[in-house]
Amino acid sequence: MAKKVLIVYAHQSSGSFDAAAKDAVVDILTAQGCTVEVSDLYAMAFKAAATADVVKGNLKSAENFCYLDESKLSWEQGNLSDEITKEQSKLAEADLVIFQFPMYWFGVPGILKGWFDRVLTNGFDFSQDEPYCLETFKDKKAMLSFTTGSPESMFCTIGINGDINVTLWPLQNGILHYCGFQVLPPEVFWAPALAAAKDRKKMLESWRTRLQDLLKEEPLSFTPLDWFDKETFQLKPEHISEEFGLSVGIHLSNPLPSQS
Amino acid sequence: MAKKVLIVYAHQSSGSFDAAAKDAVVDILTAQGCTVEVSDLYAMAFKAAATADVVKGNLKSAENFCYLDESKLSWEQGNLSDEITKEQSKLAEADLVIFQFPMYWFGVPGILKGWFDRVLTNGFDFSQDEPYCLETFKDKKAMLSFTTGSPESMFCTIGINGDINVTLWPLQNGILHYCGFQVLPPEVFWAPALAAAKDRKKMLESWRTRLQDLLKEEPLSFTPLDWFDKETFQLKPEHISEEFGLSVGIHLSNPLPSQS
Repeated sequence: MAKKVLIVYAHQSSGSFDAAAKDAVVDILTAQGCTVEVSDLYAMAFKAAATADVVKGNLKSAENFCYLDESKLSWEQGNLSDEITKEQSKLAEADLVIFQFPMYWFGVPGILKGWFDRVLTNGFDFSQDEPYCLETFKDKKAMLSFTTGSPESMFCTIGINGDINVTLWPLQNGILHYCGFQVLPPEVFWAPALAAAKDRKKMLESWRTRLQDLLKEEPLSFTPLDWFDKETFQLKPEHISEEFGLSVGIHLSNPLPSQS
Repeated sequence: MAKKVLIVYAHQSSGSFDAAAKDAVVDILTAQGCTVEVSDLYAMAFKAAATADVVKGNLKSAENFCYLDESKLSWEQGNLSDEITKEQSKLAEADLVIFQFPMYWFGVPGILKGWFDRVLTNGFDFSQDEPYCLETFKDKKAMLSFTTGSPESMFCTIGINGDINVTLWPLQNGILHYCGFQVLPPEVFWAPALAAAKDRKKMLESWRTRLQDLLKEEPLSFTPLDWFDKETFQLKPEHISEEFGLSVGIHLSNPLPSQS
């Protein structure tokens, strides 16, 4: 069956490398028969601030506004703002979601962080009482695709920025895995602004090649949910492994730190 | 000499726990003779999107807009937007900057991410050619102070969210340390929304106590800059330590993973 793809895209310029990366997705997945939709956040002037206008009706507590509670209630009552509801409908339809952005300050641009804050509503796709466990998105795949300012050499285990997987942990585990997505490995375009034109072209060609079979890729491996105690959300004693160390926050399926 | 303190504050409600934490800073540091200024981002309707209006004059390349380049050029030419210039002036004056926010999706709220993206301009407080090395902010201290949704038990090495220090790495290393701040240990208010009133009160009391001597605290330890090769920004061979593993991205001064 034809798949539905959503690209959440956060670059200001149609002449950018990020735009070309986004266009490659549209080209190749459309040619495969997928329906591809783009949420072009700057073009939409998507609002990043989590304010009371997320709710169409009255607030539960205007005096003591709590975004998490108000947006949850509003979701339950079906009166989230039209802008949010529209993005949630796109998400509900999608089989694959690709976030395409330039990395700003070791994270997503503010406009995209605002999209996460506002669209991923408590109740819709996650439950604070059962983190990581809501199954709404379990058949959906999601991935990060981004350009960096720093070269790869700085984002490795001996580089000054540290391992890129550490920097991606809050996004890949904290947002995508928490929401229940199957998380595909990220596509990292290392410092295209510093690269020669031919190398930029190679990066895009490599992405186009990957896209041919993207929908068949295996997702990243996270610690299985049933390894955690359901009350404390801590690893059960039998799953605290010497091989991988105690931390679940700093590896995917790799041991660390590498001492070799 | 009296110190200047800037609080960059990102909560919507004056009745919130974050507001109380911010008010505690104002009270206690003002009583110590400090000048305390607050950038109340929601009240200011601070814009989070990194768009062309950061520049007051003409763009260098409107067709192929690149935020990093345009904002750098605009900073050099002294025609950044008034909103950005004003925040930069506050930063330039401050001896201590406290970021007070509720953690949203394992990071700062979109409105605060937008503040980082837009106020921390290439050239003003960092240089892409000499990351971590510009000394503009070397006498300034900065810290994160935030409320979480998850309890502490989930944010430890055996918790499902992983070690909180991993989640904070992109912020503390990638933003604050990169900009050259001395980074004070974070103040984490664990899930105040789930706590009993008396426990919330205790958290605030503990913060008020810490604030008494905050300005005398030692900053967190990061790997010394001269341990890195100036060309590659990778650890020099003599500093690749077996004790701490290879990764510089996953510890501060602590060995990891703990196997004990």
